[in-house]
Amino acid sequence: MATPEETDLPVSLSDYERRAEGKLDSKAWAYFSGGGADEITLRRNRERLDRLTLMPRVLRGGPGCHLRLRLFGRDYAHPIFVAPLAHQKMAHVEGEIGTARGAGAQKAGMVLSMQASVSMEDAAAASPTCRWFQLYFQPLRAATLQLIRRAEAAGFELLMVTVDAPVNGVRNREHRAGFQWDGDVIPENLQNLPTAPLKPLPEGASIVLDHFMAMAPTWGDVEWLLGQTKLPIVLKGILSADDADQAIALGIHGIAVSNHGGRTLDTLPATIDVMSEISSVVDGRVPLLFDGGVRRGTDILKAMALGASAVMVGRPIIYGLSVAGALGVSHVLRLLREEFEIAMALTGCRTLSDIGPHLIRR
Amino acid sequence: MATPEETDLPVSLSDYERRAEGKLDSKAWAYFSGGGADEITLRRNRERLDRLTLMPRVLRGGPGCHLRLRLFGRDYAHPIFVAPLAHQKMAHVEGEIGTARGAGAQKAGMVLSMQASVSMEDAAAASPTCRWFQLYFQPLRAATLQLIRRAEAAGFELLMVTVDAPVNGVRNREHRAGFQWDGDVIPENLQNLPTAPLKPLPEGASIVLDHFMAMAPTWGDVEWLLGQTKLPIVLKGILSADDADQAIALGIHGIAVSNHGGRTLDTLPATIDVMSEISSVVDGRVPLLFDGGVRRGTDILKAMALGASAVMVGRPIIYGLSVAGALGVSHVLRLLREEFEIAMALTGCRTLSDIGPHLIRR
Amino acid sequence: MATPEETDLPVSLSDYERRAEGKLDSKAWAYFSGGGADEITLRRNRERLDRLTLMPRVLRGGPGCHLRLRLFGRDYAHPIFVAPLAHQKMAHVEGEIGTARGAGAQKAGMVLSMQASVSMEDAAAASPTCRWFQLYFQPLRAATLQLIRRAEAAGFELLMVTVDAPVNGVRNREHRAGFQWDGDVIPENLQNLPTAPLKPLPEGASIVLDHFMAMAPTWGDVEWLLGQTKLPIVLKGILSADDADQAIALGIHGIAVSNHGGRTLDTLPATIDVMSEISSVVDGRVPLLFDGGVRRGTDILKAMALGASAVMVGRPIIYGLSVAGALGVSHVLRLLREEFEIAMALTGCRTLSDIGPHLIRR
Amino acid sequence: MATPEETDLPVSLSDYERRAEGKLDSKAWAYFSGGGADEITLRRNRERLDRLTLMPRVLRGGPGCHLRLRLFGRDYAHPIFVAPLAHQKMAHVEGEIGTARGAGAQKAGMVLSMQASVSMEDAAAASPTCRWFQLYFQPLRAATLQLIRRAEAAGFELLMVTVDAPVNGVRNREHRAGFQWDGDVIPENLQNLPTAPLKPLPEGASIVLDHFMAMAPTWGDVEWLLGQTKLPIVLKGILSADDADQAIALGIHGIAVSNHGGRTLDTLPATIDVMSEISSVVDGRVPLLFDGGVRRGTDILKAMALGASAVMVGRPIIYGLSVAGALGVSHVLRLLREEFEIAMALTGCRTLSDIGPHLIRR
Repeated sequence: MATPEETDLPVSLSDYERRAEGKLDSKAWAYFSGGGADEITLRRNRERLDRLTLMPRVLRGGPGCHLRLRLFGRDYAHPIFVAPLAHQKMAHVEGEIGTARGAGAQKAGMVLSMQASVSMEDAAAASPTCRWFQLYFQPLRAATLQLIRRAEAAGFELLMVTVDAPVNGVRNREHRAGFQWDGDVIPENLQNLPTAPLKPLPEGASIVLDHFMAMAPTWGDVEWLLGQTKLPIVLKGILSADDADQAIALGIHGIAVSNHGGRTLDTLPATIDVMSEISSVVDGRVPLLFDGGVRRGTDILKAMALGASAVMVGRPIIYGLSVAGALGVSHVLRLLREEFEIAMALTGCRTLSDIGPHLIRR
Repeated sequence: MATPEETDLPVSLSDYERRAEGKLDSKAWAYFSGGGADEITLRRNRERLDRLTLMPRVLRGGPGCHLRLRLFGRDYAHPIFVAPLAHQKMAHVEGEIGTARGAGAQKAGMVLSMQASVSMEDAAAASPTCRWFQLYFQPLRAATLQLIRRAEAAGFELLMVTVDAPVNGVRNREHRAGFQWDGDVIPENLQNLPTAPLKPLPEGASIVLDHFMAMAPTWGDVEWLLGQTKLPIVLKGILSADDADQAIALGIHGIAVSNHGGRTLDTLPATIDVMSEISSVVDGRVPLLFDGGVRRGTDILKAMALGASAVMVGRPIIYGLSVAGALGVSHVLRLLREEFEIAMALTGCRTLSDIGPHLIRR
Repeated sequence: MATPEETDLPVSLSDYERRAEGKLDSKAWAYFSGGGADEITLRRNRERLDRLTLMPRVLRGGPGCHLRLRLFGRDYAHPIFVAPLAHQKMAHVEGEIGTARGAGAQKAGMVLSMQASVSMEDAAAASPTCRWFQLYFQPLRAATLQLIRRAEAAGFELLMVTVDAPVNGVRNREHRAGFQWDGDVIPENLQNLPTAPLKPLPEGASIVLDHFMAMAPTWGDVEWLLGQTKLPIVLKGILSADDADQAIALGIHGIAVSNHGGRTLDTLPATIDVMSEISSVVDGRVPLLFDGGVRRGTDILKAMALGASAVMVGRPIIYGLSVAGALGVSHVLRLLREEFEIAMALTGCRTLSDIGPHLIRR
Repeated sequence: MATPEETDLPVSLSDYERRAEGKLDSKAWAYFSGGGADEITLRRNRERLDRLTLMPRVLRGGPGCHLRLRLFGRDYAHPIFVAPLAHQKMAHVEGEIGTARGAGAQKAGMVLSMQASVSMEDAAAASPTCRWFQLYFQPLRAATLQLIRRAEAAGFELLMVTVDAPVNGVRNREHRAGFQWDGDVIPENLQNLPTAPLKPLPEGASIVLDHFMAMAPTWGDVEWLLGQTKLPIVLKGILSADDADQAIALGIHGIAVSNHGGRTLDTLPATIDVMSEISSVVDGRVPLLFDGGVRRGTDILKAMALGASAVMVGRPIIYGLSVAGALGVSHVLRLLREEFEIAMALTGCRTLSDIGPHLIRR
């Protein structure tokens, strides 16, 4: 499909990655592309997807093929979502506005990060598909509530609560690159939140255990949150089937199976490796979202074959944004969607309902 | 066996590959050598053959060893066939005529591609071993029939219908190389076929799903085809034992187990990995052909040990053709046959009937 | 946590390793960093830890997290110990004094090597946490006893007896680097020990079998030793569950599961690979210590999940010492402790008692 | 053990390999070091030995350790033998005489190749340990008999008959190097043997099948051979337990488990991979010899743990010979023996009878 004039165009998501590395300054590159510690989980996310083997079926042609799905009461053109990604103005001056426009152009649902560098109202206004809001529990419940009320007012339709990062991972790549927050990129939605007074830690206390863990959320906080809003709530960052079961027992509406893109604890399993067991425990009670290394249409097919209702794409969106703003985001999503359609066609899947574990070779 | 004067001669198929890379322009090289997406299946075809381990038996000498076989009612000197390969004039000015002559010189059966760059009549005339014709279902049945009638008239004795490519794979290597069809290399046998009028797709429709998949063939088309000709029909591109079973239930005469040389969907299994299970389901009802990474005589032995009646060789033929025309094709086939004889000798197989799963180490 | 001014600081133990390689002369580097023969076990120690996969649990926040433990009747702030390492003045002029001070600063227990390059009294005086003494059985029991009495008098509280090195491993890296003992670095604690007269070996005798093995210790020597002191005795260098069982039957107080850092026999298992089976046989009867490739906080969590009560860190201590003396040792231990705290937090472990085999993915 | 003056000395067999590569001309190097086709089996021999894991036992010191064994009615100082290797004058002017002297100096048994470049009488005279003679069945039984009578007369005490090479492997490395026989290196022992008149092959016949396989030996030839001599006969080149069983049923006296150093059929199993199953079928009825990648003392221990009575070393002997003649051979054998002693000591084996499958970790 590439014409000779087009040969400088990226033709795959990995092409965007290479170009983004050349475009971003080394600190932003380290921040966006890096993972925890030795980046074993980061690489594992890809390796395990690559190793998974698809079984094709033939001679299933004919009209009527499509990618549509219904999720949390809404219709979507396809199951490819933009993952929540912080501080996008570090990647491109358009920031989350560019991403929202690119996603909108491809009819892709978008999750806005609480740590966005634009206001949630502006992001929501930029695209009708930017309707999910990601947040962390704040040290003060009042602050958490204030974020939720504002998201509700801005028209967001779902809350995605990240629960896998009570402390940061060991981000050695960032450390080595000398990464620090750019003063010009401000987490707009965290301004003017109520904060608790800082208590100094006693001599010899541990920042990790006595500060971050001491104020980290619990299942009780999840229970409280469920009573505060009518929006569906998805917990993001679950890898354990027991945690998934506990979340559903509490009434949670969806689960995002994720290892935070390999950015928290190193040597966690690849996300794809736990999909089967979580899906088997959840057994259709709530939708499962998947992220963790999606770079190819075949990856989407694999995640869905193992139980995901939809997938979220993270870093490639940032790479598209870095390279060409909204247009880059849109192209990344278009490439991925077209690859996914080809993967459907070549495995004989006519609609998403044809996707199942039989596609994966044991 | 190499004399010092001969040391510049290729001594293995990989030598031909290296030489062909130097000989072909980068776009043709990308087209012929490339695979789908990240080329995982392309590499896997080789890796899994390499990893498979042969068990030798000793002290089986004596006269009477040979490689002969009977297949679809004909006798063949050996089980090495030339796979259907499109557009061979892009590799060498002799195109499929050169390949047919090289194959004929080695008494190797040849499958002519529907997309050959010479007419099927000329190819058939070039060698008495060029007697199998490969085709795709055409959008119009009239077009498919026209191809078949012409092949019958030209003396072809078998039809091989490729069923694993309703759409192209994600050929990123070609895209990056800026590959496009050379205006001088024309698919001779597709000229003047009846075509359906092109209906413009509605806004937002998918080329893959609403165009290609919509007109892609079905099992019903296979059933129809079986009623149109007396030639034996082989379906090419089956990896699933269920598809193989369904094909045989419909009355198909043979199956070519193939992943299209890793050129369609990436992360499909290596062909050799599915041979056992397909062979076990087929259980001798029809002959199985094998392709997918054959580069060594031991590969042929392995495929046959796991159930293939014969193997097809693809890219190495193109490499031989690129390097030295008909002579190169002939030398490639001679090397492969001699290696296969050595593999037979060193595993104690005296004829093809001695080959069986006991040769493969579990 | 790194500020831009700090970016030249090592941020992980592997950074210390790279810096130490630049700092040490090539012979000392070969001595400290090298392993036996082809260094397969050396690499395997790391590879198997890296490959082991941790399962996280979420939403376990709240105050009260800590790393404290009780071991051999004493309280420790955390389970990270300094392994016995010989000849530390070859790494830095401060030698074991620097190491003791660095360990003390981080409240880390330290095992002093019998082959220390400072006197055991000076080491004990340098830090209240330097209270374990490592020794080898001497050819003469009188010599062994003399070492023990001196250690008791110096305030050491535990004896760690290395039993896995009756002969040296095949240290090819040292041989190739031309390593030999530096005349200025003297094993202070081995001066003036009683020695047996050297009997010349008969013609054709084997140094390994007729000299070293002939005088190597036996289980009988362990039994004898247990009757000579009231200090708890730990056997270091056990990989076989049967040996562990035999040691406990004799009354030993603890076991250090170790392959001597890959420095003795090559192709031994990674230490982490035998932890489960030893732990299962020992079944809590005595504490297990672990060494063998600890470079990350996650490694500590893994060793403890599989049954270790505490871990010992070897080469990274030397690397820290080489780079910056006591300060380097202290920083290495601080990095490791902080990484371990993060690993605890991100797997939902609030105290060491939450650690167990459920953290390891099967 | 290396002193600084010795640091240019090879300290391991791999050092000899590197040096030999520099010393031999490229054709001889290709001949001696190369394997069949893609050299997968050649590498596999090493990889599988490296991957095999040894379990140590501790505290087994004391006098009385040794390596002695009794084999085919003779006493040997240790179980390390020199494998039969052809054309050694291509490696060094001393040829097999140098090898015999080096082997003698280390009390190592030596197998003289039928294709030696010195006469078998001279080789036998060069060392009392050169007492095994390797041969291939000759096309004429009279020729085979003549070789045997001459070997008997020269004092050889055992015949090792190679049965795994009715044809040569696909030696691409040799082909590419332009290797051919050096006219000055003559297979002394094959001069003046009776030969059958050469029958020209018919047009289109296969050299492999119609010439080499047609005259290749059979089990009947083995039966005949057993009736012709009182010397014990060892079949070399058996990998299949069924072949081993058949050989013993015929009355053969020993089996050399071997894949011909990876020089015949590529993708055969590593020799070490079949030891267990052959040993289990043979069940002590005859001694098993092992070759295939022995480069370390631990390799010897592994082969014996899985059932070998002794091992043969091939290429490293040639490398030692290339580098320093008899002295190099002797040093190679000394290094290997010392490494083996260390491996014995560090796994707690006091004599060869302590070696068993319990040393290998499952």
